[in-house]
Amino acid sequence: MRLGFGLQRICSTITPANPLIFRSHPLPVVLIYRSSSNMASEVNRTAHAFDKTRFEALLNRRFFYAPAFEIYGGVAGLYDYGPPGSSLQANIINEWRKHFIIEEHMLELDTTIMTPSPVFETSGHVARFADWMVKDTKTGDVLRADHLVKNVLESRLAGHNEASGLAAAPPSEDKKRKKKGAKAAAVALPDEAVKEYETILAQLDNYTGPELGELCRKHDLRNPDTNNEVGEPQQFNLMFKSSIGPTGQHPGYLRPETAQGHFLNFSRLLEFNNGRVPFASAQVGRSFRNEISPRAGLLRVREFTMAEIEHFVDPDNKNHERFSEVKDVVLVLLDRHIQESGGSTTVNMSVGEAVEKGIIANETLAYFMARIYQYLIKIGINPERLRFRQHMGNEMAHYATDCWDAEIHNASGWTECVGCADRAAYDLSVHAARTGAQLVVREALKEPIVTEKEVAEWNKKVLGKTYKADAGVIQQIVDAMDELELLRLKGELAQGEAVIKSSDGKEFNLTPDVVTIERKTFKQSIREYTPNVIEPSFGLGRILYTLLEHSYWSREQDVERGVLSLPPLVAPTKVLIVPLSAREEFDPLIKEVSSKLRRAGVFSRVDDSNTSIGKRYARNDELGTPFGVTLDFASVQKGTMTLRERDTMDQRIGAIDEVIAVVTELVFGNINWAEACRRLPAYDGKQDVD
Amino acid sequence: MRLGFGLQRICSTITPANPLIFRSHPLPVVLIYRSSSNMASEVNRTAHAFDKTRFEALLNRRFFYAPAFEIYGGVAGLYDYGPPGSSLQANIINEWRKHFIIEEHMLELDTTIMTPSPVFETSGHVARFADWMVKDTKTGDVLRADHLVKNVLESRLAGHNEASGLAAAPPSEDKKRKKKGAKAAAVALPDEAVKEYETILAQLDNYTGPELGELCRKHDLRNPDTNNEVGEPQQFNLMFKSSIGPTGQHPGYLRPETAQGHFLNFSRLLEFNNGRVPFASAQVGRSFRNEISPRAGLLRVREFTMAEIEHFVDPDNKNHERFSEVKDVVLVLLDRHIQESGGSTTVNMSVGEAVEKGIIANETLAYFMARIYQYLIKIGINPERLRFRQHMGNEMAHYATDCWDAEIHNASGWTECVGCADRAAYDLSVHAARTGAQLVVREALKEPIVTEKEVAEWNKKVLGKTYKADAGVIQQIVDAMDELELLRLKGELAQGEAVIKSSDGKEFNLTPDVVTIERKTFKQSIREYTPNVIEPSFGLGRILYTLLEHSYWSREQDVERGVLSLPPLVAPTKVLIVPLSAREEFDPLIKEVSSKLRRAGVFSRVDDSNTSIGKRYARNDELGTPFGVTLDFASVQKGTMTLRERDTMDQRIGAIDEVIAVVTELVFGNINWAEACRRLPAYDGKQDVD
Repeated sequence: MRLGFGLQRICSTITPANPLIFRSHPLPVVLIYRSSSNMASEVNRTAHAFDKTRFEALLNRRFFYAPAFEIYGGVAGLYDYGPPGSSLQANIINEWRKHFIIEEHMLELDTTIMTPSPVFETSGHVARFADWMVKDTKTGDVLRADHLVKNVLESRLAGHNEASGLAAAPPSEDKKRKKKGAKAAAVALPDEAVKEYETILAQLDNYTGPELGELCRKHDLRNPDTNNEVGEPQQFNLMFKSSIGPTGQHPGYLRPETAQGHFLNFSRLLEFNNGRVPFASAQVGRSFRNEISPRAGLLRVREFTMAEIEHFVDPDNKNHERFSEVKDVVLVLLDRHIQESGGSTTVNMSVGEAVEKGIIANETLAYFMARIYQYLIKIGINPERLRFRQHMGNEMAHYATDCWDAEIHNASGWTECVGCADRAAYDLSVHAARTGAQLVVREALKEPIVTEKEVAEWNKKVLGKTYKADAGVIQQIVDAMDELELLRLKGELAQGEAVIKSSDGKEFNLTPDVVTIERKTFKQSIREYTPNVIEPSFGLGRILYTLLEHSYWSREQDVERGVLSLPPLVAPTKVLIVPLSAREEFDPLIKEVSSKLRRAGVFSRVDDSNTSIGKRYARNDELGTPFGVTLDFASVQKGTMTLRERDTMDQRIGAIDEVIAVVTELVFGNINWAEACRRLPAYDGKQDVD
Repeated sequence: MRLGFGLQRICSTITPANPLIFRSHPLPVVLIYRSSSNMASEVNRTAHAFDKTRFEALLNRRFFYAPAFEIYGGVAGLYDYGPPGSSLQANIINEWRKHFIIEEHMLELDTTIMTPSPVFETSGHVARFADWMVKDTKTGDVLRADHLVKNVLESRLAGHNEASGLAAAPPSEDKKRKKKGAKAAAVALPDEAVKEYETILAQLDNYTGPELGELCRKHDLRNPDTNNEVGEPQQFNLMFKSSIGPTGQHPGYLRPETAQGHFLNFSRLLEFNNGRVPFASAQVGRSFRNEISPRAGLLRVREFTMAEIEHFVDPDNKNHERFSEVKDVVLVLLDRHIQESGGSTTVNMSVGEAVEKGIIANETLAYFMARIYQYLIKIGINPERLRFRQHMGNEMAHYATDCWDAEIHNASGWTECVGCADRAAYDLSVHAARTGAQLVVREALKEPIVTEKEVAEWNKKVLGKTYKADAGVIQQIVDAMDELELLRLKGELAQGEAVIKSSDGKEFNLTPDVVTIERKTFKQSIREYTPNVIEPSFGLGRILYTLLEHSYWSREQDVERGVLSLPPLVAPTKVLIVPLSAREEFDPLIKEVSSKLRRAGVFSRVDDSNTSIGKRYARNDELGTPFGVTLDFASVQKGTMTLRERDTMDQRIGAIDEVIAVVTELVFGNINWAEACRRLPAYDGKQDVD
């Protein structure tokens, strides 16, 4: 829970809004997976319930990522990506660049992480980018206040359900509660308590720190690890602080988002874009948040890679040129009204309809929501576990028009992975006010706006002579008049004399030799405005983690044989080359196949380690490598090669060049596995390679 | 100048070793540029002397990069990259990944920037990653001590040369001195002073802080900005410090290099590589150094992107499998002996010969030097402004075997851009010693090593009964014996009895029923060792900046018309599409050409701004866009398109698809401009597009 205007953005919370939905799908992993890599074949990926422990062991074993500084005991919330994790991340970023930056001609930026304090004073981060923490009254351990409330209440509700026989807690949930040391006793609660807890959880994002403290006292919420009481919530700023230069006089912060770097460069970007709006800047980079007590793996970390877009748009026209291309994209929407009334029912609706009905505020926001959806599906996120949740009234920044989070479902529930907000003119306005820089668009009007109005024309000489010290007051009175008053004055002057009154009741006589009122024409040919900002903001680590979870399953015949069905588009390695053995006779063929694949633009790796082909394939199933080719004696003698598909373990055979052609088309998504099977006969060799 | 073992690495100093060379080429930009983009045509790129002010104005105007937080007044040493700078950087990184990671099957990592203090305590950074600073005694301004010495002495030498009529100071140097407020008076110096200053400058990297203080006093070196005296040099640690977590008890630092992240993950990397050595890890990422007083643009910054390789190798075998592929690559070498004797003469030598002659320590180090050279040339660095300088004895880390810097010449002199060091086993050893982690390779020996030795066999029962409390002492005495002593004891026991003595002179009689000495065979089948590390470390910002400088020139007819002759490989945009006007009739053609180029893998941009074609091309010459295609009425009517080459401004014409085919081959380097001219006739349209 964060305070105030729009600082509660991407990566700030695992949305706690829908424990109800979570409970109604106790085993969300048994959803039917769609075939992520365009394969037609049937594989039972739901033979085993999702086992988070096995899944995480696989990621650790294969070095997708690991706790940073592990040999020093590690530091909570800091992780290193190993070779497959780095590759997967690079591929996700690469697709992001193609999908957004190149496709939409965005202007890429790479701005600094270290930021001098005044920037974040202006943006509001120094004062308000904070979480509420509570201290264990005996051990001094620090907990995030809202997480404490969430964990204890959810645990009590789960215990209640168990006791009432309403639902057995799902095994993983149960284990989690026990591990956390929570009083997970299966105790039935009074009906009112159940209702009250559910209401609190649904509105958790709306509580202030003192209110969270009040909840802890009222419901006797204690540190689940020690059962000790906790103290009053205190604010903790989440930015890492440092100092720039040798004198210690220039405090700096590590950016908690890349956005300020875009706003500060607005004038340069506008100029680069030949002064035209709309345009978007984009940046992929590291950001930092000094989380109070991160425990959720890659879902809540202290250092993370983000991808942010700031789309600058005319506040008077938020239509999008390419909206027609996406208007039929159907999204799962959870709107603010449903949530505010305590519900969690989603609707499936095209973005076109949502804009028409006023559910999504404008076309540009809706355009980006649809594009976000397309991107996430393309890289392999399960569309059945993806929804767009609108921020509630109190949750949203006061200046923001509308804000939607793309939430991806995973073992921890629904997690905010992409934020998509209309931030209005806030950011540019505050930086302009603080620095005096003109962060505006000047637009030549096609048709100058011509206006006429009554204007006072003074004869300054006569004015001064006649009224002396009162001259200034008299001018002020007339200058403050509106059109109607001026017309009245004009009429009176036409009669020869007019009387005007100052605010303190003093009267002055005016005559036409001092002032006349005339109708004048004004022509405005430049329009000047502060553009609004639509901001899609991606937490790439969260996307990477949920993608891995969505891709994971175990072979029906053996729960220990894990597979990551990553789409070829993002898989760390596309093709594994497996020689039957490390014998030298295979070397020329390995070189040939690997260089032909490289020329075709397909990234392959050779595994010639001293272990069985089956074990090598099993290892690469865990690494998510979609295809494998085997070089054996038939390859040497007859020039054939087998092709294996990861998910089905199907094997086909063909001439080496033919197999290379087929696998290249598979990798680039031009054909699916069914088509590959039509082109290559099944491999019926006796040698069992699995 | 940094203290101690190997912390003086990439980005730590603009090497001051060769002011002599610098002075002997007062206008280094008049070197003959080679044609960087494979064009055969002749262009006079040296018509105008390099003008740093014009060059930097171009980079600023086109937003390659700009001071970060500019509207807040900026912060020294922090820069943001705009769209062309970001693109150029992304292309440089992309080529780096292909050239090193993919080509050499390196294991990529992405580790955290925020690092807990113990890691840098172990590595030595907390104690020693520091520069010496001095304070202006009146204003309190802080200066880097070695930079002060360098600037003042160089300025005096330049003044001397001017006064003696030896050489006019080059205008840019002169301006620099004046701007800095140095006493740049043209004063002749005594011969001894000239010699002494030159010796000091040549050995600047060898002075300690107190020695720098002594130099300031002896030669009356003052702050050039104020002419005030400076105080005693003090150490300033260059790492940015912060604190991890809410309690403030866990100090952390921003990494000053990515290397530690590789070393800490060594065991996981080794396992990922199936336990085999050699292998290399690689990482591209942000690092931070809190420079004392950065003033040199992108050459000395507080936040920068590095690319580092840690190649782990058997200390007993530093040959490289692929050395034969590079052994004939000729490098410009400046070896340590030449420098130590005060000289700066380089030799051109193949890396094969350099290894043979013992100038480069081993094949692996030489292999990487050659590969670094190939990479730098490929992206467009002028080979005539690239040399490899070996670290001098005192400059190099005490544990290092050898270290070479790839230095690139630019307007500031020779700048270290890539470091290439053999760091021996230092890093893994210190982390293993501190954490107890086994950072070693265990290698199954092909031939087990069989050894025989004499071993004492005790009858513990009899030993205890006979000697009681002395039993332990007796065992210790025998266990401490070497082979010879054991053989003597064996002989005595064979006689029936032996006498042994403890260190304090006590004697014990031993008989064969208590102990016998037997010859036993031992078989060692595993070899265990700490691998050595060869580390190529790239400062990407410095490479990017020097590449821009090497690419810059002005048209002969107009010094204001700047061109950046970036090779197509790294140019931010490959092809500019220029419609004659923004009229709608060109839209379908623009879409067609741009989508055909995209399909061919060529990144293009459309410039349909309301300005002349000539101005649009001039802007894109400044952006380094190598090719432009113009769509005009002939395109609409006859389906032709003109193709313009940036450096020569030559224009050719052909059918649209033909031009696309030619430009695609040009971009991928398959053909050069001469070949393109053979395929497409010259454009002789009357309309002057330049």
